Amino acid sequence: MKEIKKRSECPISFCLDFFGDKWAILIIRDMILNDKTTFGDFLRSDEGIATNILTDRLKMLETEGFIVRYPVSGKARIGYCLTEKGISLIPVIIEMALWGAAQNINGYRKEFGIQLKKDKAGVIKQLAMKLTEKYITIKSDMENNFLN
Amino acid sequence: MKEIKKRSECPISFCLDFFGDKWAILIIRDMILNDKTTFGDFLRSDEGIATNILTDRLKMLETEGFIVRYPVSGKARIGYCLTEKGISLIPVIIEMALWGAAQNINGYRKEFGIQLKKDKAGVIKQLAMKLTEKYITIKSDMENNFLN
Repeated sequence: MKEIKKRSECPISFCLDFFGDKWAILIIRDMILNDKTTFGDFLRSDEGIATNILTDRLKMLETEGFIVRYPVSGKARIGYCLTEKGISLIPVIIEMALWGAAQNINGYRKEFGIQLKKDKAGVIKQLAMKLTEKYITIKSDMENNFLN
Repeated sequence: MKEIKKRSECPISFCLDFFGDKWAILIIRDMILNDKTTFGDFLRSDEGIATNILTDRLKMLETEGFIVRYPVSGKARIGYCLTEKGISLIPVIIEMALWGAAQNINGYRKEFGIQLKKDKAGVIKQLAMKLTEKYITIKSDMENNFLN
């Protein structure tokens, strides 16, 4: 499993040691902005992540506490959900989206970009609330199942 | 020279394709937050960048329009200065700093972190103004030298 190496005490360097892995961040992007949940969902993203890299990065994200896995109800599948630590990445992802959108004028998601420019703080808050609610529901479901 | 490969039309993926290179971003961090200018300045950073990587990344940043080189007045040395494109990365770098600082509680720069939490927009504006002023001065100096 890809490990996060810390190269200095600088918080930006620490963040980069994690962000240096593009694939991990693209998985988190898919969970934040594209409502993706399962292995198959992530596999179908435009960037074409390889199955072995996806397996590895999901394991890393779980070990590092960014995501938890849960049984998708009614289906024999595993879902992945962001934790508080994962959700805390929203402002960084949003700034990257704004910067990328400004550079890469042909990019998709024009409407999201316009909404973001108008009310960045509102978009961040809304995403964080939605994802925190999802995490809390999944956590409590899993605790209940464990107790029953 | 390391090239930036674009893997999809997503602005976050585009940003990551650039950010995927940790070293380039650490150079930009040093220019934004640590007032570093010369090859020797960057070489002395805590992360211990190798000279061949530093040479390569400075060339890439110059080619991609993030930085310009200029003669350091009175010294037989070259300085590097952020352009508008480089300066546009400040909000991303600042969000990374905030996130890294929240995760990495032993990190340095505690005072900067406190200031950032209090007035993020103000810090970003101040840094952008300072660096834009520097860029404009250097650009006009170079244009004048070229004309004389």
